[in-house]
Amino acid sequence: MGSLLIKNVLHHGETTDVFIKNKIFSRIEPGLDPMLADKVIDGTDKAIIPPFYNGHTHSPMTLLRGYADDIPLFEWLNKYIWPMEKVMNAEDIYNGSRLALYEMIRSGTVFFNDMYWQQDQTIRAVEKMGLKAAIGVTFMDGLGKKKIDENFNYLDTHLNPDTLPEGITLTVAPHAIYTVGEDLLRRCATYAAEHNLVFHIHLSETKQEVEDSVKAHGMTPVRWLEHIGALEPQVVAAHVIHVDEEEFEILARRDVTLVHNPVSNMKLCSGVFHFQKAQEAGCRYILGTDGCSSNNNLDMREEMKVAALVAKSRYKDVELLPAATVFKMATKWGAECFGLNSGKIAVGKAADALLLDLNNERMIPCYNLISNCVYSADNSVIDTVICNGRILMENHKVHGGAEIVALAKESSIKMLERLKRQ
Amino acid sequence: MGSLLIKNVLHHGETTDVFIKNKIFSRIEPGLDPMLADKVIDGTDKAIIPPFYNGHTHSPMTLLRGYADDIPLFEWLNKYIWPMEKVMNAEDIYNGSRLALYEMIRSGTVFFNDMYWQQDQTIRAVEKMGLKAAIGVTFMDGLGKKKIDENFNYLDTHLNPDTLPEGITLTVAPHAIYTVGEDLLRRCATYAAEHNLVFHIHLSETKQEVEDSVKAHGMTPVRWLEHIGALEPQVVAAHVIHVDEEEFEILARRDVTLVHNPVSNMKLCSGVFHFQKAQEAGCRYILGTDGCSSNNNLDMREEMKVAALVAKSRYKDVELLPAATVFKMATKWGAECFGLNSGKIAVGKAADALLLDLNNERMIPCYNLISNCVYSADNSVIDTVICNGRILMENHKVHGGAEIVALAKESSIKMLERLKRQ
Repeated sequence: MGSLLIKNVLHHGETTDVFIKNKIFSRIEPGLDPMLADKVIDGTDKAIIPPFYNGHTHSPMTLLRGYADDIPLFEWLNKYIWPMEKVMNAEDIYNGSRLALYEMIRSGTVFFNDMYWQQDQTIRAVEKMGLKAAIGVTFMDGLGKKKIDENFNYLDTHLNPDTLPEGITLTVAPHAIYTVGEDLLRRCATYAAEHNLVFHIHLSETKQEVEDSVKAHGMTPVRWLEHIGALEPQVVAAHVIHVDEEEFEILARRDVTLVHNPVSNMKLCSGVFHFQKAQEAGCRYILGTDGCSSNNNLDMREEMKVAALVAKSRYKDVELLPAATVFKMATKWGAECFGLNSGKIAVGKAADALLLDLNNERMIPCYNLISNCVYSADNSVIDTVICNGRILMENHKVHGGAEIVALAKESSIKMLERLKRQ
Repeated sequence: MGSLLIKNVLHHGETTDVFIKNKIFSRIEPGLDPMLADKVIDGTDKAIIPPFYNGHTHSPMTLLRGYADDIPLFEWLNKYIWPMEKVMNAEDIYNGSRLALYEMIRSGTVFFNDMYWQQDQTIRAVEKMGLKAAIGVTFMDGLGKKKIDENFNYLDTHLNPDTLPEGITLTVAPHAIYTVGEDLLRRCATYAAEHNLVFHIHLSETKQEVEDSVKAHGMTPVRWLEHIGALEPQVVAAHVIHVDEEEFEILARRDVTLVHNPVSNMKLCSGVFHFQKAQEAGCRYILGTDGCSSNNNLDMREEMKVAALVAKSRYKDVELLPAATVFKMATKWGAECFGLNSGKIAVGKAADALLLDLNNERMIPCYNLISNCVYSADNSVIDTVICNGRILMENHKVHGGAEIVALAKESSIKMLERLKRQ
């Protein structure tokens, strides 16, 4: 990959040049020689900021976008989502992942933490499109012993990073405590801890989950996970809504990363994340969109705004979760959680960046760039997306977009046909 | 204005042609002859839907976007908003309005109900840019007798619609009960009722407003307005958060239009609109963005999504405020409230429309067009905006956008300079 120089771009309020070489920010200073670089981008009237890191999603579910909304959970799953998932084949998962990744790039996301089936298809899509991802190998008791063993074999054979495309890591992803019993949870936790892999799980998402856990185990989900040793590995827990103050302390002590998914939480009426309590307990928290069947997009910008609004509104405190903090949740803290040397525009960091169009109407006036990003922007402000020094979008254009859209459309039509034939 | 034919466009799930003549939808049927029209648009892979009607905003405040966020109300007003408003001159208000209108067009809005100062400047902007608007002549006791009389004179001299640019009506806009006393409220109400004008007011936005009203008048704001006859004219009331069930019944009986402003309500921690109670009481409700200093954009698409999410989340009922209903709040019901013969794509209606790009990634798959509009879309899905048969945006391009942005930027810089000199 060649080197890249961005001339005269706004960075922390100053106009400077940004030089990217060997996939990292090599120099950030004004007056750099354009002859240095294989490619030069004019950064005039543009600002450079970190891109977004999506903490929790199910990318292939983009193919279920809008298929069933405003419907109670049980009916939603039984009548709509599960039957549709049954007719999704490998190619659909690939096409759905590609659509998701295209949407991510267009909305400024370069990394996502995924949990779904047939992870090979999503890995193929990531490799093809040049993003980074933590891809879950997903476990449920319902898979049966054979498939579960296959999953562990898959993990075994990919322990060496060289066996995976660049930018991809695997996670051990037991779906939730109500779909994964004690034995498998322990096995997943031990495996993740031994091999230093992220343990990705849905946790305390609904009141029902907590009540069932208390009934079955005599304790709440967070205490149950701690009890069986499942908080030993590096845990990334999605939703984490129905937890008490003592549980937040456990989560903080165990350095669990909480992924806040405000849009999905509201749309499915799961409850409201206790942002203030998480903050007070000293927890680590980041931001995620969840999947397209419960959001219905992968737009981290929208997620930041809704997160800020919900926190303020819930606690009647306008100062809570200000723009700068929610922006960190979506960028720097997300990157840190997955061990990426990125999420910040600084020399030595991996060259992930967005160039924002400062002449876009949503960025005018520009009293506060980050406030505009969080509260005002839409995706039309994003001009260029760079991931590990590679340009994924330039001048609003993503290579191959039309084909991705056509294939995803085709997949969705074929899925409906298969469903009808059943 | 010439006639316009949109060929092969998706309308209510069917591909058809839409013919616009004399500013109205003249024919909607397949197979229309392209020779009929002065201009033909290819509607292939596009859907036609009504545009948005913004029920409550303060368009010139777009110049205060991001100037002060995440700050308690009192400090926000005293230290930031009011001093900045003092240095805004007529040209700033014009430039700010134009920026607002440009943003509205780009996000699919063709009408807005405005309340601000120097309404002539906003009217100039609307005329220049071809939208429609209900423009408030704003009253506060603090204006003093001379300015108040001038405002009523202004209304007197514009009672004949021919004295106003096409598409513009005036409203009588007493700011709120805590800034307008009984005498002026009565005078505004009588004037609005006599001349059949909309009476536009902020109502029961904060708990403080309700408490102060009970202290001062022995009754809550809604009861107080009814008591003094201020619910006699056609009332459009913004926010309406802190009201009880009996008050919702009063509002329903008086046919008051409630404008729901979910983003502003959350950002300023004003409280949560009782959607379910308003619905049960049979109230009329529409949607608005409020101004850019408390939102910070004018994006009705985003407002629809947040409105749906907040209603569901508050009442723990995923079926509440489904996509189709919130879409009507933002379109048909908004248009109806202001006596516009529009908000629906149907023969005989004023030709207001959006063309959506069905190949945009946010519209894929398209199991449910309206669900995609509400929950998934961003503004990049809007290809074309038509208002009264006139094309305001085509192929994502709005005429004169760069100049509008440059002038608004200049205004914001000059305002800051004036503020510093003080």
